[in-house]
Amino acid sequence: MLIGRVVGSVVSTRKDEKLEGRKLLIVQVHNHENKPVDQYVVAVDSVQAGPGDMVLYATGSSARQTEITEGRPIDAVIMAIVDSWDLGGANVYEKWA
Amino acid sequence: MLIGRVVGSVVSTRKDEKLEGRKLLIVQVHNHENKPVDQYVVAVDSVQAGPGDMVLYATGSSARQTEITEGRPIDAVIMAIVDSWDLGGANVYEKWA
Amino acid sequence: MLIGRVVGSVVSTRKDEKLEGRKLLIVQVHNHENKPVDQYVVAVDSVQAGPGDMVLYATGSSARQTEITEGRPIDAVIMAIVDSWDLGGANVYEKWA
Amino acid sequence: MLIGRVVGSVVSTRKDEKLEGRKLLIVQVHNHENKPVDQYVVAVDSVQAGPGDMVLYATGSSARQTEITEGRPIDAVIMAIVDSWDLGGANVYEKWA
Amino acid sequence: MLIGRVVGSVVSTRKDEKLEGRKLLIVQVHNHENKPVDQYVVAVDSVQAGPGDMVLYATGSSARQTEITEGRPIDAVIMAIVDSWDLGGANVYEKWA
Repeated sequence: MLIGRVVGSVVSTRKDEKLEGRKLLIVQVHNHENKPVDQYVVAVDSVQAGPGDMVLYATGSSARQTEITEGRPIDAVIMAIVDSWDLGGANVYEKWA
Repeated sequence: MLIGRVVGSVVSTRKDEKLEGRKLLIVQVHNHENKPVDQYVVAVDSVQAGPGDMVLYATGSSARQTEITEGRPIDAVIMAIVDSWDLGGANVYEKWA
Repeated sequence: MLIGRVVGSVVSTRKDEKLEGRKLLIVQVHNHENKPVDQYVVAVDSVQAGPGDMVLYATGSSARQTEITEGRPIDAVIMAIVDSWDLGGANVYEKWA
Repeated sequence: MLIGRVVGSVVSTRKDEKLEGRKLLIVQVHNHENKPVDQYVVAVDSVQAGPGDMVLYATGSSARQTEITEGRPIDAVIMAIVDSWDLGGANVYEKWA
Repeated sequence: MLIGRVVGSVVSTRKDEKLEGRKLLIVQVHNHENKPVDQYVVAVDSVQAGPGDMVLYATGSSARQTEITEGRPIDAVIMAIVDSWDLGGANVYEKWA
């Protein structure tokens, strides 16, 4: 998994029917020191993430192991909202700070 | 998933029989700010995308989760046509603008 | 899928028995403008591709969706020989030109 | 698999229920000469790894082949703690040195 | 698949039980012109490869399609020892030269 920030969302009317009702969020990838890197992904939300949330996303077939994504043409899923993380014992990010 | 623009198509006569009738489109990948990046993919179309359309594509085994691609040697599928997307509340792309 | 050109082949005697009789071709990846890029792959041939042919190859589990590769430790397959492709309506490559 | 060092951990309360009780560790990837490279991954721990441990992690569907990760939306797993490795007969890393 | 050279091995005592008895080799990736590139992988050996051998390795779920790796948390397998390869009709590598 990688860490990212929800920065936007995608609207699509004409799509595979298995995508019906799935929220498509744009995630800006961050590195482990919480700096944005030059990479993004469009991921389906399975945890009711909102704009600005730091999240974890999984890719590939692992992205289809949630109730919301199973059996669907989805290769990235947000499966956790990050509360905090540390590096070498020092807090890097704290949601409620 | 990543966002891209349909910029061309590939013609192939000699191919695995499971590809018969599948439309092979060339997608130029865009970043989330809608700038083309130095990456492309040839994806099978499952939503009747046309030249110039902004689309979402899925890769890997997830690309085989549509009726059109199931069980076939296809590792990328266009599964949605993008109407619009926003970043930080600001519209980045609008199909009908 | 990506486009590439068949530039060579690999010979191996000691290999997993499931590779017996599978032709291992070296594919130089090209970009969508038909320029070779700094990337190659060794792919199993499923369409009787020959030296110099422009081909499409699929990777990952999708590479195991042909009769020739099913259930085998193969992560890349040539599943189509490219006749031609276009970008923005202009022909980029034409096999029979 | 790649080699990495456990440098931190991620806390998440709101997450897919299948992640309940899974420890999320931040792994800084190292190259084979034991230099950290500009890449990290958040992986689920299956071997009780601790801070500073050098580990091996597997990605993709292979990350779901442990008891702890099976059937879950997890695309990276720590499946071994590294004791030592050598290059060209010379020891590069030795845990107990 | 990619071509690489076996340059070392990894020792691990504490690991997922499904890795028991599997040999973990460090493979330095080479390009198709036989130059080492800045990439390595730790792969399980399925063909009794030894130090210095040029090998082919497969990744992802395809790495689990050998008897030695099936159902295990392994995302890279050495599935062939390379005898030779050619580019444009010219020999690039010959094991027995």
